[in-house]
This record gives sequence, structure tokens and C-alpha cells, in this order.
Amino acid sequence: MTKKALILIADGTEDMEFTITYDTLVRAGVQCTSAYVSSVGTESATNDAYQATPYATCSRGIRIVPDTVFSPQAATPETYDLLVIPGGAKGAETISTNSPVQHLVREYIEAGKYVGMICAGSLAALTSNLPKQPLTSHPSVQSQLESDFTYSNDPVVVSGKLVTSRGPGTTFPFALTLVELLCGKEKRTEVGGPMVFPPGTFA
Amino acid sequence: MTKKALILIADGTEDMEFTITYDTLVRAGVQCTSAYVSSVGTESATNDAYQATPYATCSRGIRIVPDTVFSPQAATPETYDLLVIPGGAKGAETISTNSPVQHLVREYIEAGKYVGMICAGSLAALTSNLPKQPLTSHPSVQSQLESDFTYSNDPVVVSGKLVTSRGPGTTFPFALTLVELLCGKEKRTEVGGPMVFPPGTFA
Repeated sequence: MTKKALILIADGTEDMEFTITYDTLVRAGVQCTSAYVSSVGTESATNDAYQATPYATCSRGIRIVPDTVFSPQAATPETYDLLVIPGGAKGAETISTNSPVQHLVREYIEAGKYVGMICAGSLAALTSNLPKQPLTSHPSVQSQLESDFTYSNDPVVVSGKLVTSRGPGTTFPFALTLVELLCGKEKRTEVGGPMVFPPGTFA
Repeated sequence: MTKKALILIADGTEDMEFTITYDTLVRAGVQCTSAYVSSVGTESATNDAYQATPYATCSRGIRIVPDTVFSPQAATPETYDLLVIPGGAKGAETISTNSPVQHLVREYIEAGKYVGMICAGSLAALTSNLPKQPLTSHPSVQSQLESDFTYSNDPVVVSGKLVTSRGPGTTFPFALTLVELLCGKEKRTEVGGPMVFPPGTFA
């Protein structure tokens, strides 16, 4: 059965972390949906504020048109196998402080579905009150996380259904780990080949 | 003086190759402009066809709003220090078969400005009639290039002002090489640090 991933995006989301994750999952046959989380609240995002600006302006200025607007009702673990929260300071703040997102993070974990967080996106583990467990993040937010989690410097940390990573430079292994968890080790190898990683890296 | 890069984009451009290059250059302080090359020709792109669809649909479905529409008059080496042609089979075909783009590629090289090509984007070296020199590309288009160029399997090949690379997996070293060439080795190190590459890769 086709696996499905919901990848959140907001103004200030890190351009590469979003794109590498989405693209790599699509290459693995995962059906990806990007959903725009508004900084002015979930309610407003569904009406005028969003209509006026139908794209997210990412952290380095790339403007991405999301597939849909984030709706807690449509984002449930009954529909998706994976929820991804990318980094980028401002985008991660918008997403991790969104109360429906926090609720969903707990729901996904409880339902046995995967949640991926990368870079400052790992702050969502804290704001969602996830129990103490191994985790990593961008070094710039380490101090906010290390008392509540077992902080690791590994490029990718898999802790049950919670998968965390560090920054743009670790997004390939992050995305390929998500591919392996959702679709198996063979699919990871199949997807990695045509991406032509330099010898000795990742694949 | 601020360096300027013009990064071409078309429907079918590889999402990651475009985004990693643009984002990494912005992190280095390079002023980036993305310009949409229409598959129905440069003339049409400036009018109705583009207005109706003001974004590029990349190869894995990510929709990116370009900064501007490609105009040969505005794209000259007098304005930009670097011209980038990303891959993605369909996008690279549109860009590399565009006659004004081919003319610009030669103009940039002759003016001593850099041209970066990655993945199937390297086909533009052939369509622009560049002289035989070292070059790399995605393996899928190697056979089209190896009789006219000195084909290499290196992740990044710098041949005078022509910089070529292989695929999504080599885009970080491609982009960091462009940073080094435009802004120096120190800037490359400064930009690479916060991107948190896994030990032993790239930075």
C-alpha cells in the first residue's frame, strides 16, 4: 500500500530541509503532501491571510507553493504514515508553537506512526511534551533541549517512532532513514543510487 | 562588492538541485535571482502562458515561484557573476535547448564569468557548443557527452569558468565550490559550519 507523508511548511522554513525531505520521499514512492502552517494561527490560515499569499517564503527566500493549508482534521495519523517538521528558526517556531500540531505529534507517536523533526524543528518534541528520550537538533537549539532529552550529536537519531536530525547537511541521511523506515532497506538503496552521492557519503 | 547569481528554473527542474544551490549561495551572501525558462519559448514566457501559472513545477512535484521570468536582455554577464543550470531531465531539456540560454553560456565564459551545470544540466555544455574540456554530469546523460568532452566521474569538475557536477547527491559540494570560487575559501568554511554536515562529508 502507498505510504503517505505530511510535511509541514511555514514562512521561514529551511528551504533545503523541506525540499530534500519531500523530493527524496517522492523518489521512494511515498505520497507527499505539504501543508502550510500560518504564523497567525490555524483558523486564519484557511481564509484571507492564506489566499493573499499562496506560498511560503522560506528562510533563504525561495517561495514554495504548498499542496494544501494545514488542517488538524485532515492531518491525522489515520491518513498519514509520517509527519515531518522541518527547521529554519522562524518556520520551526511557527510550527512548534502551534497547539494543533503539538497535539498531532503526540497522536502520531501514540498511533505508532512516525514523526520526523530536523534542525530547529526538534523544538516540537519539547513543545509537544514528549517524554525524555534520545534526540538531536541543530546545535543552535541544543541548550533548549538537553535538559529534557538525552541529547545526541549523531546526524540522525531514531528513538521509537521519533526520528530527529541536525541541519541541511544531515537532511539526506534523515530523508533516507525515513525511506528505510517506511519502505525498507532495499528501497533506500534503490533511491540513493541515482542521486549520485560522492563516494563515502550517505548512500 | 556583492556577488550575483542567476539560477535558471523550468518545469521539471530537479527540486533539490535548484534549492540547495540557491540556498547555499544566499548563505554566502550571494544575491540570487531565479529566472523561469518556459518550455514554449522565451517570447511566450513573458506573457500569458507564464501569468496563468506563476510557478515552476519541479521534477518531484514541488512548486517554486521564480523571482523573475528569464529575459536574455536582463541575464547578461555584465549583471551576474554566475549562471547556473540545474538538472532534472525535462527542465534541463527546456533550458539547454533554449537558444538565448545557449548564447548566454558562451557569453559568460567569454566574459570570464562562471557557469555552473549539474546533472542533466550539463547537456547545455553540448548544446552551447563549448570546446572539448573536462566535465561531468548525471550518469544517465554520460553517453551524450563523452565523445565531445573529457568525461570525468568526479563529484565536481572545475574547468576554467565551467563548473559541472553529477546529481542531487553532489549538489552540496557543487554549491560550496561555487561559493569558494566567488567568495573565497574562508566563506566556504563559514557557510559549511552551520549546515552541520556529518563527520567526513563535504565541509
